[in-house]
Amino acid sequence: MKFKPLHDRILVKRLEDEEKSKGGIIIPDTAKEKPSEGEIVAVGPGALNNEGKRNPIDVKVGDKVLFSKYSGDEVKIDEQDLIIIKEEDVIGILN
Amino acid sequence: MKFKPLHDRILVKRLEDEEKSKGGIIIPDTAKEKPSEGEIVAVGPGALNNEGKRNPIDVKVGDKVLFSKYSGDEVKIDEQDLIIIKEEDVIGILN
Amino acid sequence: MKFKPLHDRILVKRLEDEEKSKGGIIIPDTAKEKPSEGEIVAVGPGALNNEGKRNPIDVKVGDKVLFSKYSGDEVKIDEQDLIIIKEEDVIGILN
Amino acid sequence: MKFKPLHDRILVKRLEDEEKSKGGIIIPDTAKEKPSEGEIVAVGPGALNNEGKRNPIDVKVGDKVLFSKYSGDEVKIDEQDLIIIKEEDVIGILN
Amino acid sequence: MKFKPLHDRILVKRLEDEEKSKGGIIIPDTAKEKPSEGEIVAVGPGALNNEGKRNPIDVKVGDKVLFSKYSGDEVKIDEQDLIIIKEEDVIGILN
Amino acid sequence: MKFKPLHDRILVKRLEDEEKSKGGIIIPDTAKEKPSEGEIVAVGPGALNNEGKRNPIDVKVGDKVLFSKYSGDEVKIDEQDLIIIKEEDVIGILN
Amino acid sequence: MKFKPLHDRILVKRLEDEEKSKGGIIIPDTAKEKPSEGEIVAVGPGALNNEGKRNPIDVKVGDKVLFSKYSGDEVKIDEQDLIIIKEEDVIGILN
Repeated sequence: MKFKPLHDRILVKRLEDEEKSKGGIIIPDTAKEKPSEGEIVAVGPGALNNEGKRNPIDVKVGDKVLFSKYSGDEVKIDEQDLIIIKEEDVIGILN
Repeated sequence: MKFKPLHDRILVKRLEDEEKSKGGIIIPDTAKEKPSEGEIVAVGPGALNNEGKRNPIDVKVGDKVLFSKYSGDEVKIDEQDLIIIKEEDVIGILN
Repeated sequence: MKFKPLHDRILVKRLEDEEKSKGGIIIPDTAKEKPSEGEIVAVGPGALNNEGKRNPIDVKVGDKVLFSKYSGDEVKIDEQDLIIIKEEDVIGILN
Repeated sequence: MKFKPLHDRILVKRLEDEEKSKGGIIIPDTAKEKPSEGEIVAVGPGALNNEGKRNPIDVKVGDKVLFSKYSGDEVKIDEQDLIIIKEEDVIGILN
Repeated sequence: MKFKPLHDRILVKRLEDEEKSKGGIIIPDTAKEKPSEGEIVAVGPGALNNEGKRNPIDVKVGDKVLFSKYSGDEVKIDEQDLIIIKEEDVIGILN
Repeated sequence: MKFKPLHDRILVKRLEDEEKSKGGIIIPDTAKEKPSEGEIVAVGPGALNNEGKRNPIDVKVGDKVLFSKYSGDEVKIDEQDLIIIKEEDVIGILN
Repeated sequence: MKFKPLHDRILVKRLEDEEKSKGGIIIPDTAKEKPSEGEIVAVGPGALNNEGKRNPIDVKVGDKVLFSKYSGDEVKIDEQDLIIIKEEDVIGILN
């Protein structure tokens, strides 16, 4: 089964501890708005800007990212726990 | 009888359990804002952008979609329970 | 007597039960924001967009429409109960 | 004495019962936001849009109009009770 | 001493009763937001619009104006009580 | 040590009574939002407008200005008490 | 390990007392919204403006900056305490 996000939405798989980037990024427990680590599973075509053109999406499938975890719709597709967020909620790419 | 949505509105039929996509997408009960699964029945011509041109609608009649369920006007047309939402409330296309 | 709406306003006659579209659209009593059925009596010239041009109005006199009923100024013109709404409050056209 | 409204403001004389349009428009007492009937006394040059050009004003001196009455500054000029409103508060023209 | 307002600000002298326009404008005590009468003492160069150009100021030094009195910074320059407001708070010009 | 403000920020030195402009401007104690008198110490390059160009800053180093005092970050640089504000908080130039 | 911020985000290392700029900037304890001193570790590609072009970022890696400390996500990368903020939260560059 496939899921194609619309607009500037992206589909992200939350990373479990053993999948997380090594060497490594740590989100301190004291962080006020603790972000999550995930891997991009699908990306939308981009939102339309004021001129009616699509803004490019700055992440691609396979990117490991940090994202704000207080946003997004949780879904389970083919037994995988996924979350649908907007690209603006991606804070940055880990590599 | 026909219903033609205006602007960026679309007419959606909520899918019952037996009609839902197989193989499958599951919305966990723990999801904060649980989205719904539906099938597009009619689409509007698109909203006008700042330049007075219509933004294209990214879904078409027959698409099975996931949409935010806390939006939209419920109507019953020809015995069918339908809901009128805005295209921005469609999260993605299932296929 | 005539009433010419300004900008993107339109003048709508609420439809009584016997005038309503047959075959038919039903607004369930359980709908959170129950829309109304009406017929367009007059339309404004369109609002000005950011570039100073008028956005076209997507409905015309005689159209039977569904509109959000929590908006608009109620008036009585030549013994008819009418309501003045904005075009964006029209949800779609029935035919 | 003259008063020249600025931008998109217009100067309106509220109409007394005997001056009101015949044949006629009635604002029901049950209307939630009861509009008023008035005659345009002076109009501003139009507000500047995003491109620095003036948006035209859709009413002219002498027009009998319906306007939202919960807006505007009340003034008395040469013994006349007048009200200064913005053009967007004019709902439509009566004729 | 001179004071040069920035952007779309203007410097206004409130008019005392004996300086007020004759023949005349009266602000009723019952007015909800009672405007004030004043004379323009200095005007700014205009605010920048979205395209980076200055919007012209529609009043000039010496104009007698009506302005919203719930806005602006009060200052005393060379023994004169003045008020600095934005041009959008000027309702119109008296003459 | 140098401090280069970013965007449309400017660095201002609050003026003590003996440094204030003579002949003179007085902020009445009754003023609702009492502005402050200061001297510009550094200016940013200007904020980017919607077209991606920088809006010019209307003040320069050395200008004595009036500014809204309920905004800005206070800092002490090389023993001097300074305040970093946005250019829009400068009300006007004294000279 | 590398972290590439997205859009107009930047990665900042808070400066400890012994690393802070000499000669020097002091944030008074009485400051209402006390800013922090930091060093830029990574910068995003810039946010897209209304025309779909990237706005340039006015800081570069290595810049010592003052930034608003009530914003940003705290992370720990390779044993370093870092904070991810938006470029608009950078108040200015110290040098």
